[in-house]
Amino acid sequence: MSFTEAELEMIGRMAREAALELAVLSSTRKNAILHAIADGIEEFAPQILAENAKDLANAEAAGLSDAMIDRLRLDQSRISKMAIGIREVAMLPDPVGEVLAEWERPNGLRLQKVRTPIGVIAIIYESRPNVTSDASVLCLKSGNAVILRGGSEAFHSNCAIVVAMQKAGKRAGLPAGAIQALPTTDREAVSVLCKAERYVDLIIPRGGKQLIERVVSEARMPVIKHYEGICHVYVDKAADLEMAIRIVVNAKCQRPGVCNAMETLLVHKEIAAEFLPRCAEELQSRGVELRCCPESLPLCGPKAIPATEADWSTEYLALILSVRVVPSLEEAINHINRYGSKHTDSIVTADEKAAEVFLARVDSATVLWNASTRFSDGGEFGFGAEIGISTDKIHARGPMALPELTSYKYLVRGNGQIRT
Amino acid sequence: MSFTEAELEMIGRMAREAALELAVLSSTRKNAILHAIADGIEEFAPQILAENAKDLANAEAAGLSDAMIDRLRLDQSRISKMAIGIREVAMLPDPVGEVLAEWERPNGLRLQKVRTPIGVIAIIYESRPNVTSDASVLCLKSGNAVILRGGSEAFHSNCAIVVAMQKAGKRAGLPAGAIQALPTTDREAVSVLCKAERYVDLIIPRGGKQLIERVVSEARMPVIKHYEGICHVYVDKAADLEMAIRIVVNAKCQRPGVCNAMETLLVHKEIAAEFLPRCAEELQSRGVELRCCPESLPLCGPKAIPATEADWSTEYLALILSVRVVPSLEEAINHINRYGSKHTDSIVTADEKAAEVFLARVDSATVLWNASTRFSDGGEFGFGAEIGISTDKIHARGPMALPELTSYKYLVRGNGQIRT
Repeated sequence: MSFTEAELEMIGRMAREAALELAVLSSTRKNAILHAIADGIEEFAPQILAENAKDLANAEAAGLSDAMIDRLRLDQSRISKMAIGIREVAMLPDPVGEVLAEWERPNGLRLQKVRTPIGVIAIIYESRPNVTSDASVLCLKSGNAVILRGGSEAFHSNCAIVVAMQKAGKRAGLPAGAIQALPTTDREAVSVLCKAERYVDLIIPRGGKQLIERVVSEARMPVIKHYEGICHVYVDKAADLEMAIRIVVNAKCQRPGVCNAMETLLVHKEIAAEFLPRCAEELQSRGVELRCCPESLPLCGPKAIPATEADWSTEYLALILSVRVVPSLEEAINHINRYGSKHTDSIVTADEKAAEVFLARVDSATVLWNASTRFSDGGEFGFGAEIGISTDKIHARGPMALPELTSYKYLVRGNGQIRT
Repeated sequence: MSFTEAELEMIGRMAREAALELAVLSSTRKNAILHAIADGIEEFAPQILAENAKDLANAEAAGLSDAMIDRLRLDQSRISKMAIGIREVAMLPDPVGEVLAEWERPNGLRLQKVRTPIGVIAIIYESRPNVTSDASVLCLKSGNAVILRGGSEAFHSNCAIVVAMQKAGKRAGLPAGAIQALPTTDREAVSVLCKAERYVDLIIPRGGKQLIERVVSEARMPVIKHYEGICHVYVDKAADLEMAIRIVVNAKCQRPGVCNAMETLLVHKEIAAEFLPRCAEELQSRGVELRCCPESLPLCGPKAIPATEADWSTEYLALILSVRVVPSLEEAINHINRYGSKHTDSIVTADEKAAEVFLARVDSATVLWNASTRFSDGGEFGFGAEIGISTDKIHARGPMALPELTSYKYLVRGNGQIRT
C-alpha cells in the first residue's frame, strides 16, 4: 500500500505541534528526556535486537555483502554505544536561547538576535541503525522535531529504536510528535515528504548520489546536502616529503570508505620524480590502485594505470587514487576548484605563503595545511557531535553540529515606538 | 526567441570565474570598484533615462496603473539616490575574511572559521529599477557574483543600469562576469536559471506569490524566499490603550503596501469593548476597511464587515485589516503561529511576563513588544543595507544584510598531523 499525503499530514501536524512545545522546553527538561531515552535504548535492547534479526535475515536472503550486513548488525555492545552517545549529547551545551547579538537603536528600541530551533527537520539516510538515535537526539537537544526516513534494509531496527525512544522519552515529558519515523519503506514516501513544506522546515539527505539528486529535484523546502567528498591532497614543491607521504597514506588508507578520504593526489612537477616513486610504493604496498596522468604514470611503477577524464571527478570510496602532476600551485588550486566537490582539501608545504594562498583560494568547506583530510569531521573539530558534513554553502558548511541545527529570531523591545 | 541552456551556460561560467576572483579581492579594491560604479551610474544617467523612457512608454501603452508607472520612473534625483546608496555600501564594513571563531585542538591543529562569499547569487525581482543597483552592489561588497533577472516592465532600464555598472566597474578592476543580467524577458528563462545549480549557489526571489511558488518548485539550488508578511499586532488586556492605538495605526497605515505592515489585529476580550470602538474610528477615519470576527464586529461600527476564514491568512498590502477578539494570550499566540507567515508580529502590553511569553512563543523572524511592526527592516535594525526580508528559517531569517550574503569555511593549520 502506498504512503499517502493524508498519512504524512498526520505525521506532519504532530511534528509541528511538538516543535512548538520543544522550542520552549528548558535545557534541564530536554536533558532529562535524553537520559530517559538513553536508558530506554538499553531497556528495550531485547526488542531492538529481535527486530534487527529480521533485518539481518532479510539482508542475507537478499544476498547483501558481508560489509553491508556488518553495518546493519546490532549487538549489546553497539546498543550500549548508542546509549553512551545519547548521554554525551545531554552533556553538550544547549544552543537554543543563546543571545547571538544585542544592541540598542537611537530611538530606544532594544534588539536581540537569539538562537531558536529550526522547527521540523526531516532526515533521510541510508546507513547504520545507530543513525536513527544519533540524529534524533541531536534534533531533540536543539529543540527540533524530527521525521526520520531510514534505509529499507534497516526498517525493522529503525522502527524498534524509534519506539524505544518514544516510550522512554514520554515518561520524561517528550512531546508525542517529537521523534517520528515514516511507517513505510515505500519509495514514493520520499516524494510525499519532499512536497510537505507546510510541515517540514528542512530536509537533510545523507546517502548516495541518486537519493540526494532526487531530494534536490523534488524538495520544496530547504535541503542541506551531504554529498560526495572528492578530496585532494596537493604536495607542493616546498613540501617535507616524509610528512607528505605520511599524510597521503593516512588520507587515502586510514578509512577509504568515508567522505573525507582523499580521492586525488596532486604533485608539483619539481618534486614529482623524487616524491612519486616512494609515495606510490607506500600506497601500492597497502593495496591502493593508482590511476595516473601521463606525467605521473611512468613515476608510479608498473602497476599504475592511466587515468581517464572521469577519474578526476570520481569519489572512489575505495583503495583507488587518481594522481596528477601539476606545473604550479595555481594549477593545483584550479584543478581542485574545477573537479572537487568543495568538501575537504589539503596542501602539504613548508612554504607559508603558498599555504596561505591555497587556504584562501580553494573554495571548499575545510581547507587544511600540513594535515590529513581525515580531520574534516565534527568530532575531530571538537564539536562533540555531528549530524553530518554539509557540502552546501548555505546555512551550514562542512561538519554540522548542534548550532547548525538552529535558526534565530529577532526580539525587539520598545516603549511605544512608531515609525515616521 | 527563447533563452537556452547554452546561453545560461555562458553567463554561468563567467559568473563562476568572476566569483573566484571576487572572493580574494581586497576590501580596498572592492570599495574602489563600488565608487567607480556610483560615478558610472551618474555618468551614464542620460543613457539610463533614455532606456527608462522606453519602459515608461511601454507601461503606458500596456495600461499599467499610475502607481506602477511611478515605481518604474527614473529621474535625475532617483539616479543620484542610487549613486548615494552605492557609496554608502562602500562605507560598510567588509564581511569577508572575518574570523568567526578560532581554537586549537589537543593534537595541535589550529582551526579558524572564516567568513567567505557564497559564490554566485541569482536575484529574481519584480520591482523598481533601483533594486538592480542595490542588489548588485550588496553582492559585490560581500564578494559574490550576481545574475539578475528583473521584471519585464523594467527590462530596458535594468539593462542600462547593468551596462553602466559593468563599464564603470571595469575601469576599477571589476571582473567581467561579476554583474550580469539575463538578456531576455522570456518567462522560461527563470526555469533555465532554476536548473543551473552548477553555476548558481543561491537564488533569492523577491516578488509575488506566484513567482516565488514557481522558483520553490523548480529550483535545484538553495532558495531564500522573500515571501509575504501576514503581520499581527496583539493588544493584550494589560496594554496602554493610547500606545496601542498609536502602534496599530502606524503598523497599518504608515505604508500599507509593504511586507511589514499589519494585516490582522488581535485584541484581548477584556479590553475589546473599550479599545475597539476608539481604534476602529481612528482606522476608519484613515480609510481602513475592517473585516471582523463575530465578537469584534458589533464593536467596530456600521462600516465594519464580517471576516471570512480566508481573511486570517490574507496579505492585503492595502488599507484593509482583519480584526479578531481572542480570549487569552495563548490564543493570540496560537492564532499567529497558525495563520501568520512567520514574518513580524507585535504585542502591546504593560505586562512584562506576558510580553516575554509572546516573544518566546511566537515563531516569527521578528517579534516586537510595544513597537510597530514597521520596524522589522534592515535599515531600522541598523544594518546599513538590506537585500530583503527572508521568510525562511534556514541561513537567513528576517532582514538580510551583508553578513547574510556570506558563507564560511574552516581553515585548519597543522604540522603533519594524521588521524589514528
